[in-house]
Amino acid sequence: MRMYDIIAKKRDGGTLNREELAFAVNGYVAGDVPDYQMSALLMAIYLRGMTDAETAELTDVMAHSGDMVDLSAIAGIKADKHSTGGVGDKTTLVIAPIVAACGVKIAKMSGRGLGHTGGTIDKMEAVPGTRTSLSQAEFFRQVNEIGISVIGQSGQIAVADKKIYALRDVTATVGCIPLIASSIMSKKLAAGSDAILLDVTMGDGAFMKDLDSALELARLMVSIGTAHGRKVAALITDMDKPLGQNIGNALEVAESMAVLQGKGAADLTEVCLQLASNMLLLAGKGDLPACRAMAEGVIADGSAFEKCCQMFAAQGGDISVLRDADKFRKAKYSFALTAPKDGYIYKNDVEKIGNASVLLGAGRIKKEDAIDFAAGITMHKKLGDFVKAGDSICTFYADDKALFAPAEEMYRSGLVIRDEKPAVPPLVYARVTADGVETF
Amino acid sequence: MRMYDIIAKKRDGGTLNREELAFAVNGYVAGDVPDYQMSALLMAIYLRGMTDAETAELTDVMAHSGDMVDLSAIAGIKADKHSTGGVGDKTTLVIAPIVAACGVKIAKMSGRGLGHTGGTIDKMEAVPGTRTSLSQAEFFRQVNEIGISVIGQSGQIAVADKKIYALRDVTATVGCIPLIASSIMSKKLAAGSDAILLDVTMGDGAFMKDLDSALELARLMVSIGTAHGRKVAALITDMDKPLGQNIGNALEVAESMAVLQGKGAADLTEVCLQLASNMLLLAGKGDLPACRAMAEGVIADGSAFEKCCQMFAAQGGDISVLRDADKFRKAKYSFALTAPKDGYIYKNDVEKIGNASVLLGAGRIKKEDAIDFAAGITMHKKLGDFVKAGDSICTFYADDKALFAPAEEMYRSGLVIRDEKPAVPPLVYARVTADGVETF
Repeated sequence: MRMYDIIAKKRDGGTLNREELAFAVNGYVAGDVPDYQMSALLMAIYLRGMTDAETAELTDVMAHSGDMVDLSAIAGIKADKHSTGGVGDKTTLVIAPIVAACGVKIAKMSGRGLGHTGGTIDKMEAVPGTRTSLSQAEFFRQVNEIGISVIGQSGQIAVADKKIYALRDVTATVGCIPLIASSIMSKKLAAGSDAILLDVTMGDGAFMKDLDSALELARLMVSIGTAHGRKVAALITDMDKPLGQNIGNALEVAESMAVLQGKGAADLTEVCLQLASNMLLLAGKGDLPACRAMAEGVIADGSAFEKCCQMFAAQGGDISVLRDADKFRKAKYSFALTAPKDGYIYKNDVEKIGNASVLLGAGRIKKEDAIDFAAGITMHKKLGDFVKAGDSICTFYADDKALFAPAEEMYRSGLVIRDEKPAVPPLVYARVTADGVETF
Repeated sequence: MRMYDIIAKKRDGGTLNREELAFAVNGYVAGDVPDYQMSALLMAIYLRGMTDAETAELTDVMAHSGDMVDLSAIAGIKADKHSTGGVGDKTTLVIAPIVAACGVKIAKMSGRGLGHTGGTIDKMEAVPGTRTSLSQAEFFRQVNEIGISVIGQSGQIAVADKKIYALRDVTATVGCIPLIASSIMSKKLAAGSDAILLDVTMGDGAFMKDLDSALELARLMVSIGTAHGRKVAALITDMDKPLGQNIGNALEVAESMAVLQGKGAADLTEVCLQLASNMLLLAGKGDLPACRAMAEGVIADGSAFEKCCQMFAAQGGDISVLRDADKFRKAKYSFALTAPKDGYIYKNDVEKIGNASVLLGAGRIKKEDAIDFAAGITMHKKLGDFVKAGDSICTFYADDKALFAPAEEMYRSGLVIRDEKPAVPPLVYARVTADGVETF
């Protein structure tokens, strides 16, 4: 078998079989297939596509390129979730404790932020002392004892995905549905949970810019997971505006705790409840209304918040900041970005908001960049809100005043204020299960 | 400007402008653009195509990536030709002397063989003592004095093409008409001749498998050359069977000399006369019938053959082998490949014939392989000929008897004998000029 022939077959619109996919992927991981041949294959896949069965095979090959985590030493159903990424997307910190408080095990690996989107592990590390790297024995013990642990993804999970993703990132082959689906699902399959809820974000600030693409990605990922014997569903959620009010690590932790304490922003709370109920449904805890009631119940009785505190405490975190957000270290400076005129916020580019927060120090441009946990943005007015000239639209936080000007320029470059009120998108567009699609 | 954005633009079907093409090509030559980004761009070009204007820009950028040879120190019209490659294709050795004997200067650079196709420079080196690497001063002096020199391509011609071609060769992006056209024409433009005749081979043994592709490639190359102020035309010639009877370096030189001496194979002689007349036409020597008569004249009066001897002598070659082919060193062994049954030669795969000759030692699989100039094949029966069981179809020549078995297996694997007579293709399908297409 030759990589050349595999590239030529896909270039001509052929369907690669298991052996060919394994030859390419495993050869690439082993260093036998050079970067330039893999990038030619990736571009051919981008432009020629893959069948569902082919994508499922690719996913399986990539999952088996590293460790396949065996969670059978943890009793009961294990649930996982994945978001395709967003700005201000702190849902894991809310729904994992809710689901665990309802008795479903969470043994979850999460990622770090890169570019304009954030990552759960960075947010967790904003809580002083929190360890996000546990041995497998510690991880299993914690989940068995308190029902929940969220840690950083092991370097040994879906090794091929890591190497291939890095290449896609520099060869303009990221935005391809079969490649996105196989990348995400290879990690989820390798991570070992029984029930997997996918949060497919859609809009300006997400990979998927329109409903058709988002539904296609969701359908494909659900079909791959189901074919591998997992319970999988997806919600298509909006990313035309950030979720909640806060962007930045400590700011987002504080906002998540507010939701768990029953005093969170309405949009964020609603999305979290829908995500949590669907995870509970997949885990077999009842029908959707029953699961929703259960999720609302563990917020109302405080047990979800306590579960979250238990998790952080078990991982060494100082939970005083969870109980009282004022105890988080504050940024040295703040800056109010004001409305230049009266009108509705007609557009507020989510990627630019994310990039502004990165410029303030809340995120990374390169992998090795350090993060300022206290930096970020609190939004007071969002897409569709009416503002008067001089109103504060948002507040920036940073340790260096010099960061405000470039962040303001970035934020304003995506901001449009008009007399006309824009159409405000729903929070959740659709739900995709193995049985079909339900649009809202 | 970022290579990423250039890849993404082509991936999405955009047209790259001069600056973008120069950024990619010159960056690649300089080592600033890595292989994996260039191969992604090449695959995107393969699958998305290029406009004619875009291909002309790419050609110009590639031509200027190395030396642009200035032939103005040589008086008169300079003519060049290029063949897109074939098996047994020795036309340069015939038509360059014909054209030079008619008073048109030939200051030509040629290539070596690789894979199943041969190269003029290897064939020239089969004549003992022949130097194919001259200084520019020697080259110019020889052309000014005797009107003709054929040398190996300088390493400084179209430097980008060399590097890009090597990458295309391993990433399944060779067979793309805009990339083929820009590769060939960048070298021809850089080599500096005024009149360029293109021999676009078509059939089993060529890159272009059908007339539509061959016409498209020819039309594109003629348009690029014309846009650069050169006189360009193309003939589409057949490569469903090798040209003439001989394949192998010394064997092909001997066959070429027979044509120049007026005793060559009919098919080879006819194709050479058509190519030579069209070169003379481009060089302004009269209308096509007059040019044909002139080409026939310099064969009949012996002046074309003498011009060829002059050229080899000037480059140090032992021309006794040209005057008497029996003086070539002979291979130690020969082997007759016989017909297994009565019938017509219905198929005789040209690529397999070429590969059989490589297996005998006449060609290279890798660039650094040595060539046995005496090795090769003489064909006695070709596509469409009738054979009786036991008839010799061809004779193999090699210095090692062990090479006959694999070469025979290769040759026979492409040989089909049937009761039915196959359609025999014409020698020349069409002629493409700046004014249009004429099919025969």
